[in-house]
Amino acid sequence: MAEEKLPNWLKNRAHLSPDRPAIEFEGRTYSFLELHTLTEKMAGKLAIKGLKAGDSCAVLLRNNIDGVVVIHALFYLGVKIVMLNNKLTAKELSWQIEDSDTGYLVSEGSFSDKLSDVADILPDLHLLLMEELPEGGKAEILQEFYLDDTATIMYTSGTTGNPKGVIQTFGNHWWSAVGSVLNLGLHEDDSWYCAVPIFHISGLSILMKNVIYGMKVVLAERFDEREANRSIQENGVTIISVVTAMLNRLLRDLKETSYPNAFRCMLLGGGPAPIHLLEVCKEKGIPVYQTYGMTETSSQIVTLAPEYSMTKIGSAGKPLFPSQLRIELDGNICESGAAGEIVVSGPNVTKGYFNRLDATQQAIADGWLYTGDLGYLDEEGFLYVLDRRSDLIISGGENVYPAEIESVLSKHPDVFEAGVTGTEDEKWGQVPLAFVVLHQGAEQKEKDLLEYCREFLAPYKIPRNVIFCEELPRNGASKLLRRELKKRMGDWQ
Amino acid sequence: MAEEKLPNWLKNRAHLSPDRPAIEFEGRTYSFLELHTLTEKMAGKLAIKGLKAGDSCAVLLRNNIDGVVVIHALFYLGVKIVMLNNKLTAKELSWQIEDSDTGYLVSEGSFSDKLSDVADILPDLHLLLMEELPEGGKAEILQEFYLDDTATIMYTSGTTGNPKGVIQTFGNHWWSAVGSVLNLGLHEDDSWYCAVPIFHISGLSILMKNVIYGMKVVLAERFDEREANRSIQENGVTIISVVTAMLNRLLRDLKETSYPNAFRCMLLGGGPAPIHLLEVCKEKGIPVYQTYGMTETSSQIVTLAPEYSMTKIGSAGKPLFPSQLRIELDGNICESGAAGEIVVSGPNVTKGYFNRLDATQQAIADGWLYTGDLGYLDEEGFLYVLDRRSDLIISGGENVYPAEIESVLSKHPDVFEAGVTGTEDEKWGQVPLAFVVLHQGAEQKEKDLLEYCREFLAPYKIPRNVIFCEELPRNGASKLLRRELKKRMGDWQ
Repeated sequence: MAEEKLPNWLKNRAHLSPDRPAIEFEGRTYSFLELHTLTEKMAGKLAIKGLKAGDSCAVLLRNNIDGVVVIHALFYLGVKIVMLNNKLTAKELSWQIEDSDTGYLVSEGSFSDKLSDVADILPDLHLLLMEELPEGGKAEILQEFYLDDTATIMYTSGTTGNPKGVIQTFGNHWWSAVGSVLNLGLHEDDSWYCAVPIFHISGLSILMKNVIYGMKVVLAERFDEREANRSIQENGVTIISVVTAMLNRLLRDLKETSYPNAFRCMLLGGGPAPIHLLEVCKEKGIPVYQTYGMTETSSQIVTLAPEYSMTKIGSAGKPLFPSQLRIELDGNICESGAAGEIVVSGPNVTKGYFNRLDATQQAIADGWLYTGDLGYLDEEGFLYVLDRRSDLIISGGENVYPAEIESVLSKHPDVFEAGVTGTEDEKWGQVPLAFVVLHQGAEQKEKDLLEYCREFLAPYKIPRNVIFCEELPRNGASKLLRRELKKRMGDWQ
Repeated sequence: MAEEKLPNWLKNRAHLSPDRPAIEFEGRTYSFLELHTLTEKMAGKLAIKGLKAGDSCAVLLRNNIDGVVVIHALFYLGVKIVMLNNKLTAKELSWQIEDSDTGYLVSEGSFSDKLSDVADILPDLHLLLMEELPEGGKAEILQEFYLDDTATIMYTSGTTGNPKGVIQTFGNHWWSAVGSVLNLGLHEDDSWYCAVPIFHISGLSILMKNVIYGMKVVLAERFDEREANRSIQENGVTIISVVTAMLNRLLRDLKETSYPNAFRCMLLGGGPAPIHLLEVCKEKGIPVYQTYGMTETSSQIVTLAPEYSMTKIGSAGKPLFPSQLRIELDGNICESGAAGEIVVSGPNVTKGYFNRLDATQQAIADGWLYTGDLGYLDEEGFLYVLDRRSDLIISGGENVYPAEIESVLSKHPDVFEAGVTGTEDEKWGQVPLAFVVLHQGAEQKEKDLLEYCREFLAPYKIPRNVIFCEELPRNGASKLLRRELKKRMGDWQ
């Protein structure tokens, strides 16, 4: 078969549905034709700066209309996009830019402090500020997207300290959107509220659905529960993507009111929801779709329909139609009820990590991705996630990997070893907590170690506390037992 | 990239949505789990008879639950299906079975007369009657469908007399369903009424959507306007596929009434609709989606949304999202407004004709299918079809190719040459009309020539009249000018 390709998504959508609303941002609505026109212009500006098909370019953006336009403009040019998390430190950003072999960074003036630090670290980087780009360039625009081509690279950590760049092809994004539409359906008046970051797959996947479905997206620069509730109650929003902490805030703000009937999907990612939340939603008639997914699956891969939200409490649901799922232990497929590693496959699953053949081969075998997460299937095939990989901490919707924090702490000259685990937090869901063993004779204060962390780690990764101890719990193979840390935490608190 | 594959559609659907209604037929509703169970059983029975992965098998079916089950059962077994039009004569059927290199025919007792004639013509054919299959076999079931694999072969004629087997892969069916859902949307309560034949792509594509979307289908053995209207008005049908003649009958039966608001799509294929029909639909608030498509595009490829049905009268609309369209004349792409051949591409387009390398190479170049139909695009990109290929006659939703009838007539010993064209007909939309030049000195009666046709041609292909004449209109290159026949018809009528 010839390689599958599709007409350039936004351009095609602007041809098919020029006048439909595409993006609403800060009270202004852009039609698909307007979005295409802005994108063409931006592609021209970027082309003047030398960006061309086959290049890769990092982006440091906020959730705003320019951010959306830059992403499409880079697609138009055939440039692979490295999506940077704008909460990261200059050191973290630089590391990812360098790791991804990227010579360009597109950003905006609001990040000037970080950008000047990045420029110090990477003097050869071409730094392009959107507001300073010259007018008038005319770019050659990709007419078709090849589904096998890399669209985006998103960094994610894992069991090792260094983040890895997850390769997401146009096909991955396409199939993710298609898998979702076959599950959630598509109404003519659909409007998807996006207050999750567009540099994460949760937000980016909404932008992909935007053009593939021809569906309106209401974009928010940051999540504000009053604003989001108002959009649902008065502005026709029918679907919203949230994590538990956001849902909590929405419900608190809702008080005695609820949502109109047209609101049809509260898409809840980032781990199983507490029962009391689901109960409140049920009382209020809010349809919650719980999901399980990750950067490597280009967003949701398993989703629980609302009709099961009370009978299958704690379940993430069943796979989207194009995807498959099994549980494996020691190379064998587990029976229902038996716990093992969650293994997934499907055309939405990444083909691997950028420049990380080892990590790719370790994670993906014969098209199946070994997620590192633990779970089991019940007799009807519903997935229950027992433990996120590498004791993942989800803090305000951001993934925080203990290993990454441990690696930073361990580099401190006074630290012998460090162990990190998550602890409950009312506002963020979870926050990290560090256990540190100092070198013999060394002395350190919690405050100074946390200050040291701030240099290397984004704010959401900074441990709430550092607890000094004599030794860390390890198993026979000297593997750190983070669950034991959790128990100790109980003693300590 | 590894070849794309998806979990076995019906089996997967039965796992994901076991209890949802799948097919309603003659008042009984089968859930997806029931449909899967019936299919597994049928696959077992067929396996006993020797059918196995890689084989091909012709089917002669009606629109009933067994027909649906047989189609899925053959997919389960990995057997390619040759879909036979049950209106064809034994001679026509045998020709297609032989041409497709098929050793098996699955059918049912109601076709016994035709089947015994087919068995006479093809003594080596394994003829399997559904009602006589032994119980209890257990088949090895395909767990995944490879999108590049052939799912079905459907015969269609064209400019030459002999029909050609259009290869439809699983991918073609998949992308057709996806292209359609991105255009029409998908509601939880959708229910698609299927009174078009499941051996045609119009009907088969509904069965594919059935399992891919997890959407209910109401299946009718034959089209009855009262029954169809009742299903829309009282039984929750939201979408129906029709051709012009069917729409006419629906409207006549509707009289003063209309449809509930939940009814959201009258999908109208088979050529542009007469304006008065569209006006009646507009008055009644019936949302008509006009479409253009063919066996080679695995059903619709261009669709006109209802909001344009009055402003773009006569247009077939714009391509579905994954597909592309252009107009070509003498190898050049036409500007808007200029007429030329309609050329289409997309993942729903066939990769070719079975065992017809020449015809394939003639029709498909670099992934683009030359439809043979004439049309133009207006300035906004809406397609207007001017003339169906080879002066296609569409009679009651069936494609009738003049060349095929001419070829039969020309073989009669008394006939020197024959030309066929379509004429308007109140009930069928169009019917064929034959112009015949006899050999010098020969004598023939209309009645006898029509009788002769009946031996070779399905009833819907039999000309309404045979008109004897001295010569046929031909151009300088001796090409028959069927449009001139149309003019003569005026003189004659």
